[in-house]
Amino acid sequence: MTTYRVTFFPDEKSVEVEEGTTIADAARAAEVFINNLCGGEGVCGGCKVQVTAGEAEAEEQARGLLSEEQIESGYLLACQTEVHGDLEITVPPESRMEDAQIMTGEAETSARDEDDKPLVRKIFLELPVPTLEDNIADIERVSRELRRKIGWHSFDIPLECLKGLSDKLRENDWKVTATVAKDKDRYRIQCIEPLDTRDRNFGVAIDVGTTTVVAQLVDFNSMTVRGVEGSHNLQASYGEDVISRMVYACGKGGLHPLHEAIVKNINQLIDRLVESQGISREDITAAVAAGNTTMSHFLLGLTPCAIRLEPYVPTADEYPQIRAEEIGIHINPQGFLETIPSVASYVGGDIVAGVMSCGIADHPEVKGLIDIGTNGEIAIGNNEWLVCCSASAGPAFEGGGTRCGMRAIKGAIEKIQISEGRISYQTIGQAPARGICGSGLIDIIHELVRNGIIGQDGKFHRSRKDERLTIEDGIPQYTIVPGEETETGEPVVVAESDIDNLMKSKGAVFAAIKSLTDYIGLSFDQIDTFYVAGGFGNFLNIPKAIAIGLLPDIPVEKIKFIGNSSLTGARLSLLSETALEKCVNISRSMTNIELSNYQPFMDEYIAALFLPHTDRKLFPSVHY
Amino acid sequence: MTTYRVTFFPDEKSVEVEEGTTIADAARAAEVFINNLCGGEGVCGGCKVQVTAGEAEAEEQARGLLSEEQIESGYLLACQTEVHGDLEITVPPESRMEDAQIMTGEAETSARDEDDKPLVRKIFLELPVPTLEDNIADIERVSRELRRKIGWHSFDIPLECLKGLSDKLRENDWKVTATVAKDKDRYRIQCIEPLDTRDRNFGVAIDVGTTTVVAQLVDFNSMTVRGVEGSHNLQASYGEDVISRMVYACGKGGLHPLHEAIVKNINQLIDRLVESQGISREDITAAVAAGNTTMSHFLLGLTPCAIRLEPYVPTADEYPQIRAEEIGIHINPQGFLETIPSVASYVGGDIVAGVMSCGIADHPEVKGLIDIGTNGEIAIGNNEWLVCCSASAGPAFEGGGTRCGMRAIKGAIEKIQISEGRISYQTIGQAPARGICGSGLIDIIHELVRNGIIGQDGKFHRSRKDERLTIEDGIPQYTIVPGEETETGEPVVVAESDIDNLMKSKGAVFAAIKSLTDYIGLSFDQIDTFYVAGGFGNFLNIPKAIAIGLLPDIPVEKIKFIGNSSLTGARLSLLSETALEKCVNISRSMTNIELSNYQPFMDEYIAALFLPHTDRKLFPSVHY
Repeated sequence: MTTYRVTFFPDEKSVEVEEGTTIADAARAAEVFINNLCGGEGVCGGCKVQVTAGEAEAEEQARGLLSEEQIESGYLLACQTEVHGDLEITVPPESRMEDAQIMTGEAETSARDEDDKPLVRKIFLELPVPTLEDNIADIERVSRELRRKIGWHSFDIPLECLKGLSDKLRENDWKVTATVAKDKDRYRIQCIEPLDTRDRNFGVAIDVGTTTVVAQLVDFNSMTVRGVEGSHNLQASYGEDVISRMVYACGKGGLHPLHEAIVKNINQLIDRLVESQGISREDITAAVAAGNTTMSHFLLGLTPCAIRLEPYVPTADEYPQIRAEEIGIHINPQGFLETIPSVASYVGGDIVAGVMSCGIADHPEVKGLIDIGTNGEIAIGNNEWLVCCSASAGPAFEGGGTRCGMRAIKGAIEKIQISEGRISYQTIGQAPARGICGSGLIDIIHELVRNGIIGQDGKFHRSRKDERLTIEDGIPQYTIVPGEETETGEPVVVAESDIDNLMKSKGAVFAAIKSLTDYIGLSFDQIDTFYVAGGFGNFLNIPKAIAIGLLPDIPVEKIKFIGNSSLTGARLSLLSETALEKCVNISRSMTNIELSNYQPFMDEYIAALFLPHTDRKLFPSVHY
Repeated sequence: MTTYRVTFFPDEKSVEVEEGTTIADAARAAEVFINNLCGGEGVCGGCKVQVTAGEAEAEEQARGLLSEEQIESGYLLACQTEVHGDLEITVPPESRMEDAQIMTGEAETSARDEDDKPLVRKIFLELPVPTLEDNIADIERVSRELRRKIGWHSFDIPLECLKGLSDKLRENDWKVTATVAKDKDRYRIQCIEPLDTRDRNFGVAIDVGTTTVVAQLVDFNSMTVRGVEGSHNLQASYGEDVISRMVYACGKGGLHPLHEAIVKNINQLIDRLVESQGISREDITAAVAAGNTTMSHFLLGLTPCAIRLEPYVPTADEYPQIRAEEIGIHINPQGFLETIPSVASYVGGDIVAGVMSCGIADHPEVKGLIDIGTNGEIAIGNNEWLVCCSASAGPAFEGGGTRCGMRAIKGAIEKIQISEGRISYQTIGQAPARGICGSGLIDIIHELVRNGIIGQDGKFHRSRKDERLTIEDGIPQYTIVPGEETETGEPVVVAESDIDNLMKSKGAVFAAIKSLTDYIGLSFDQIDTFYVAGGFGNFLNIPKAIAIGLLPDIPVEKIKFIGNSSLTGARLSLLSETALEKCVNISRSMTNIELSNYQPFMDEYIAALFLPHTDRKLFPSVHY
């Protein structure tokens, strides 16, 4: 087969590919990350690249997504164009998928019980030498001493643990370290190492987010975090959101590439942790992962195809504890991976971990967790009951579905203020503006309505005299940053259609919160605390989020940011048998309300498509 | 590296080996089985072969084991001679290891409870199609229906079971068959197959004997035996008895070849069962193996090295249930292997299975099991207590350690009668005599002492006029079969030294029985039944065995042959959760008396070196 060389700029990464490979696949092979919002369907235009040397032409179908000028300059869609010769490709800034500003922050956590045991313990054993009067089997000698040290348990003992044990004991003067792991209601002797290895015992907590993956290294001796690493989810090259990745996995692409990508992702993070902390992979004896139901399925190599379609059925909500090596995650060969259980197809282990981490199920006060991303998941309850639901919020809060929307990465506008016709804004990394991330969009809507530029219906006052307000293809739009200040030279604008999408997103989240509180017969003020989590929440301006009707109008002090509660929950589960048991109990006892079939939600949704809401009584503190 | 061709006759099997390989290793590679009593140490002379073409010479050291005439005819020891050119080798009959007359017979068994469940069940499920009102996870739908059908259990679910489940259910109209397996106190969903596969559910019971390996195919639907296959243990090429195999494994040879040999052995038997019964390997969902502690260690790839030396410590007495595939046994990829637990280094799962199979632990009456081989293992007890011990009986009862001794295979003399100076005998397979197996040796001693040819001290009356009685190298010997009637042309004789070895063997077994009954404070007549098992027991003449003082002098009807009780125990454990639980309880509750350190045993042993015994009162029915 003929192969050609494709080189990508500005990364200067080069790859040899077979004739007929798409440029997108070549980029993936070269580890050059290009936006892929639609999952390679050729409909989003996110993977626009420029051919700077060699022969390749934009497909007929793609031309609608490119301007005349771009076509003349050699622009085409990477996902739709095959390689039929050596190429040099330049990836423009707007098509680059850069390392996200990863949320590695922590949720407030329920206090840790001093008596609580981590999921893995290393116990050093100095065994009595066998005699004719005491010649029990080697493993029984190990178990007997373990019981003396940590109390009575019956131990599961894998064959791998028995292999070589006889020599190991005799060659090391009967001094060994047993690693004991908890699996559901049982204990397992995970491995037996020569001499005293107690000082090398680490775990990894992993938040498998759709957008970002974060791993934390935990020292089981000091019970402290030793390091944290994050990256964007490598699966993004198969589709930016969960749905487009499912479409890829359930179509010709298959499950395997998605599974491989997340495993590779986790291995890379572990590599970085191991290197920066100067430890060995062998010293990591356990991993706990939390993710939404689809991510958990991808991680374990389970098809998510029935999750996507009504009636939304996952393969499993509880996942077996497995040897991490079984799916190719490289830690100690006997080390395990525990995956936090889910509640339903759209309420995953990330929510369960979050609910556990902020202690909602521990006390009689009613508290709630709101996790806002492409889906908004809401969980409410106390130590006696728990309900949850999930609403599709659309990609607006994560930077999709709007003309200048982008994820919360370098160059994204995250804060905006408009006063007396002047606009001030702040970008992530103080870089030239490239677009607007979710928190910036909330600010904008609030500022536009507060300044009377749009009405409470989200429509521009077309009669207004404002040079920033223009009409493009019949749609009013407002210029936030003129072209001369941006990285690309294109202005950053917000169009009426963008505001429309954001209204739908915030409407869906609020309607979900309202439907759920109504379902359980509570008013907002009966809820003690609302915890807000998610990739979005980290940069959220709470008063403005209330003012546009995204969050309920309760005293600001009752709403608390908790950052990445999924990661916190995974870490607590690693450090505490009890915490993991709580997660299992939460996943089993939480009642999921399926909103797609729930008429009150539809009514609430329609009512919420107004700023802040059609029912002013719900937002007494908001005055425009 | 230079290679040479070695061809073995009469098998006409040929093999290409590297220069310097021993002839014994070449034979092993060619699957030609040559005796190897000493494990390749060059001291037993069992691997004598004749070079019929090519150049090879007997080593200096080996000449002591060969006659002048043999050396001139090109005889040498296969284990001591290296290949340095193409060779043709003839294996003489006495060096051939032929298929043993395998004991596949069954022990009397305790009645099976009708309500009892086999270790593996297949349950056909017709699942309700998910709806929005009932959209639990796929695996939960399977578990829910399983609980409805077989009662409440929490199931262990391996990841392998979840992979592809979603499609499997949807492509097969929600009709699947779940295989449910028992592991200790838990149930596992072992696999989920499309549609109804209940009619294909088989298990294999395996007796892993030192000398022979026997496998039985069991149909879980009819609960009947569908076939049985046996062969000699392929490990024999590394040493004929347990000790010489341990020496091999713990020396330069290493554990691996022994482990591989037994796995290959079991796979060959399964192959034959699968072929003869017209089923598929995939249809075999479980295997249960019973063997002595060393065999169980070899099977699972555990080193037996500390078993051999004081204080005799195995790696484990209880073995994990594993996927059979994990050690290379080819049945259903998810099918498991359960290994019956041992009591101690020299009281293994074969004894535990035997004790269970004859119901010793089920009733208040005190019963005993005597398993006679190279070791004699004795277990005595009832439903409240169990004790056991093991004594090294030497290889005499299995055909080793005597000049014309051989295993119970074709051509072995198994029965002998001497009356009025005339000898009548019977060989296995009615073939020309080649040697004498254990049961034949017992007969001979009994006949010799009964006819006054030897005294009760086992010594020949040298003054006796009998043309069969000759002196060779100063040792009296008695010709049983003259050279003209034998296969080899050499006469079959029994020498005084052979009788001496047999006296030691029978003395050790009886001393073990006596020590154990004394230890528990019982006389022989308080024991309700003695079950006799073992490769030897199948052909045993009970009255003669009592008359020489091997078995206690109790009414003959209280001694029962039970054939291969290890195999029966393995099969019952496969067919009954309760039976396997009983094995675990027996292994845990049985007290092992270590005779090597027990003075009363030494005294009893000395007292038993007489025919029938120095204490005539112990054998009131025996009159010479």
